[in-house]
Amino acid sequence: MSATIFSKIIAGEIPCHRVFENAHVLAFLDIAPLARGHTLVVPKEPAPTLAQLSDEAAAEIGRALPRICRAVVAATGAAAYNVLQNNGAIAHQAIFHVHFHIIPKYDDGTGLELGWPARSLETAAATALAAKIRAAV
Amino acid sequence: MSATIFSKIIAGEIPCHRVFENAHVLAFLDIAPLARGHTLVVPKEPAPTLAQLSDEAAAEIGRALPRICRAVVAATGAAAYNVLQNNGAIAHQAIFHVHFHIIPKYDDGTGLELGWPARSLETAAATALAAKIRAAV
Repeated sequence: MSATIFSKIIAGEIPCHRVFENAHVLAFLDIAPLARGHTLVVPKEPAPTLAQLSDEAAAEIGRALPRICRAVVAATGAAAYNVLQNNGAIAHQAIFHVHFHIIPKYDDGTGLELGWPARSLETAAATALAAKIRAAV
Repeated sequence: MSATIFSKIIAGEIPCHRVFENAHVLAFLDIAPLARGHTLVVPKEPAPTLAQLSDEAAAEIGRALPRICRAVVAATGAAAYNVLQNNGAIAHQAIFHVHFHIIPKYDDGTGLELGWPARSLETAAATALAAKIRAAV
């Protein structure tokens, strides 16, 4: 895959406002934040989407998330936050290197804006679909 | 913490449309889906928010996500999807047991609706904030 701005940040070729780093993960402030403290958590392993990331790299991202969330909460005072990871241009992915957003949500509504047009789950269709996904795991 | 509907599903007291299970993680279809194939991935360890989840449980969730994403994509045909994890009522959390949503995004726009009111990051403030978060990790 081609280098993205995130692989250049990981390589130290482009600066960032770093908040956490270990052997597998780098976290830094988003330069176009939705709210104060908006942080990106990025695996050092390059993969365009989460489905293409290795299990090990995904586990290391998972392991790092709680402590980074705690630190963002402690530093910003925002007790509420959304963790979001987008895959595909129509799902709002702009950089094709996996990244998890930690987006503080403030009492004044600043943060991620979510539309939630929930439907109902029809039992027969759900049973068939669950079996199809289960078979594909 | 008090039992949630998810701990009852994990205990087998309430049925679900299960798509994946191992020693640490259970995944099943959301009964109020935003789109066909909307799946919840839940740690068996109960914790209200991601910041309160153990590192090990969070790593196991991370490890399971890519394979479940691949299966949802394979079964639904939706190449794009959002992975979302909400913390706090004002951040759209309704069940206080950590859960990651995998929400397929279809070409007709069905799926998660995101507002993205990005701001710009002011360098001096960002430098101070990054230092504060880094110190809190």
